[in-house]
This record gives sequence, C-alpha cells and structure tokens, in this order.
Amino acid sequence: MQAIVNISLKEGVLDPQGRAISHSLNDLGFNEVSDVRVGKQILLEIDETDPARLRQRVARMCETLLSNTVIEDYSIDIPDEE
Amino acid sequence: MQAIVNISLKEGVLDPQGRAISHSLNDLGFNEVSDVRVGKQILLEIDETDPARLRQRVARMCETLLSNTVIEDYSIDIPDEE
Repeated sequence: MQAIVNISLKEGVLDPQGRAISHSLNDLGFNEVSDVRVGKQILLEIDETDPARLRQRVARMCETLLSNTVIEDYSIDIPDEE
Repeated sequence: MQAIVNISLKEGVLDPQGRAISHSLNDLGFNEVSDVRVGKQILLEIDETDPARLRQRVARMCETLLSNTVIEDYSIDIPDEE
C-alpha cells in the first residue's frame, strides 16, 4: 500500500529556498508570484493492508526520522483509504 | 490564489535519497517499508483569479524553472479550482 507524506516548514520558519525561487520567478517575468514555500513529498511503498495501521506506522516514521518536528509540519495521505 | 506543484523523479531515475531513507527506516525497525521516493512540493501564492489561466502560468513556470523535465515529472494542483 502506498502512503504519501508531505513535509512543509512551519509558518514563521524562514524558507530561503522558497525566497530564492520566488525572486527567480519574478526575474523571469512571473510577476504575479507573491510567495513560494518549498516542502518535501515522500512516497512510501509499504507492506501493510490495513489503512488505519498504515497511517499509525507512517506517523511513527515521521516522528522518528522523516520530519524535524521542531520546524516542520507533516501530513499523511493514503490514496487507498477511501 | 494558491497552486501546489508536486515534483517527482521519473520512473527509472535513481533516487539515492529515497534509497537512504528506506535503509534507515528498515534499520529503525520499520521492516514493512519496501520502497521510498523523495520529491518536492512547492506552494505558490499567485495574484491570479482565473484558475484556468493560473494552471497555464504555473505549467510555464514548471517548464522554465521549477522542474528539470529531463529527469522529473510535475503535477499541478489548484485547491480553489473546484
């Protein structure tokens, strides 16, 4: 089963990469861009058939390794859940 | 209006970062993880009210700067579109 983890910087945390992209887009003529934030998307293929248990395990992975919870938020999406 | 761009490596392109995460998760006891792929998620705040035009502009940004289309795929999500 697949799980998708989206990791983004918490609001208020400076995002220099996003700032750089924003400036570059403006320089390229995309003046309508006012703000850019860059996050990570992690796709996990996991041998688990129960969506509830999968979500629980992936949350554990986020807390343990995938996300730096001091400065980052994470959200878990399980496409097969519906 | 907000646009979300998800950028992932094309299938077949080696993903050493994903491989490293996969190994680390296995070492930490998450043995059910069989594959990990890492991509980017870029959140853009754009002064544009027409979703169709927004999508078109963001596609142009992806082709020009955000994505390396030789090795990466991108998808555009516009939450306000529905």
